[in-house]
Amino acid sequence: MTPGADGPAPRRRGRPSRTAGAAGPDARTRILEAARAEFAARGYDKTSIRGVARAADVDAALVHHYFGTKDEVFAAAVEVSFEPALDLPAILDGPSEDLGERLARYFIGVWENPVSRAPLLAILRSAFTHEAAATVLRGFVLRRLLERIAAELDVPDPAFRAELAASHMIGVAVMRYVIRAEPLATADPEKIVEMVAPTLQRYLTD
Amino acid sequence: MTPGADGPAPRRRGRPSRTAGAAGPDARTRILEAARAEFAARGYDKTSIRGVARAADVDAALVHHYFGTKDEVFAAAVEVSFEPALDLPAILDGPSEDLGERLARYFIGVWENPVSRAPLLAILRSAFTHEAAATVLRGFVLRRLLERIAAELDVPDPAFRAELAASHMIGVAVMRYVIRAEPLATADPEKIVEMVAPTLQRYLTD
Repeated sequence: MTPGADGPAPRRRGRPSRTAGAAGPDARTRILEAARAEFAARGYDKTSIRGVARAADVDAALVHHYFGTKDEVFAAAVEVSFEPALDLPAILDGPSEDLGERLARYFIGVWENPVSRAPLLAILRSAFTHEAAATVLRGFVLRRLLERIAAELDVPDPAFRAELAASHMIGVAVMRYVIRAEPLATADPEKIVEMVAPTLQRYLTD
Repeated sequence: MTPGADGPAPRRRGRPSRTAGAAGPDARTRILEAARAEFAARGYDKTSIRGVARAADVDAALVHHYFGTKDEVFAAAVEVSFEPALDLPAILDGPSEDLGERLARYFIGVWENPVSRAPLLAILRSAFTHEAAATVLRGFVLRRLLERIAAELDVPDPAFRAELAASHMIGVAVMRYVIRAEPLATADPEKIVEMVAPTLQRYLTD
């Protein structure tokens, strides 16, 4: 990563960029979507601020203006990718005796959907290959997801238990969608929910 | 990956290579160790047969002779990295009521040791970034580890259950050693064993 190379693109190259002033109120959203798509398709290493700007049809300076460094663009893209996590309160608010089942079903649903799966896989892949991406994921996973779950638990070591539950769901995703080991790779999602739910239930409520 | 670029190195470059005849009976072992180190340090993409040969101080033709293609070298390196798995029969042979605890302790032990952890992380990283590596891991994990465990189980769907257990252990490794999310990243290994063991026990014996 060479931040210097990601500076504003000379006007003579590529398509004409819109100016910051003409970008409109949806430019930020467009940049985020482009960043998510670029990181998902190319990985952390090969994604540049210039490339994101090109995909969003804005000037690279505008990407810098809204998000700052490449790491910060990545962090914002991670947050967008985890937006389904905003459903969490509804999941956490239900009766505690089937919390494990609700979380397992929600999680499998997010991963079964190719649209939400692609960016999650890209984030995991980036965390494996780049310390900066691992740091972003660590900060995000801790701050937004696990702490929110842990805060609702009435068990000793809630943060530890929330992480164990999350680790199991991440492991299922790695085995099913990355390694694609059978029989898990083609198992009926409901069968996975049925087996995994009691594990999550034990970690989160016992 | 351009297999053609990995052909025998011209003699004029690099250190003088030993000839196949002079390589001695330990050349195969040396190549395997070099391959494991190269894949662990550089990742799948940047590892070449020529680089492995250089690190093992042999001719690239000898690497081809013993192992074939880059994918086959990778497969052999994966097998070496999973050699601790040869301890599995001892683990599986013990009393079934604490099988989960024995597996959890064994698994954490392998990952806590930096020497065995590095190649495992490299393999996972490669599986995330290269389909060929995922294929190798899938074949290996299925053939050597999971089937061996599943064969010992007296439950319905033993292969599915063995994979769920493995997926949890992989997820713990990802969270603790790759993402390094707290509190799991610095938790006492015994505390992890204590919490994870009942999960593995349920999958494998209930």
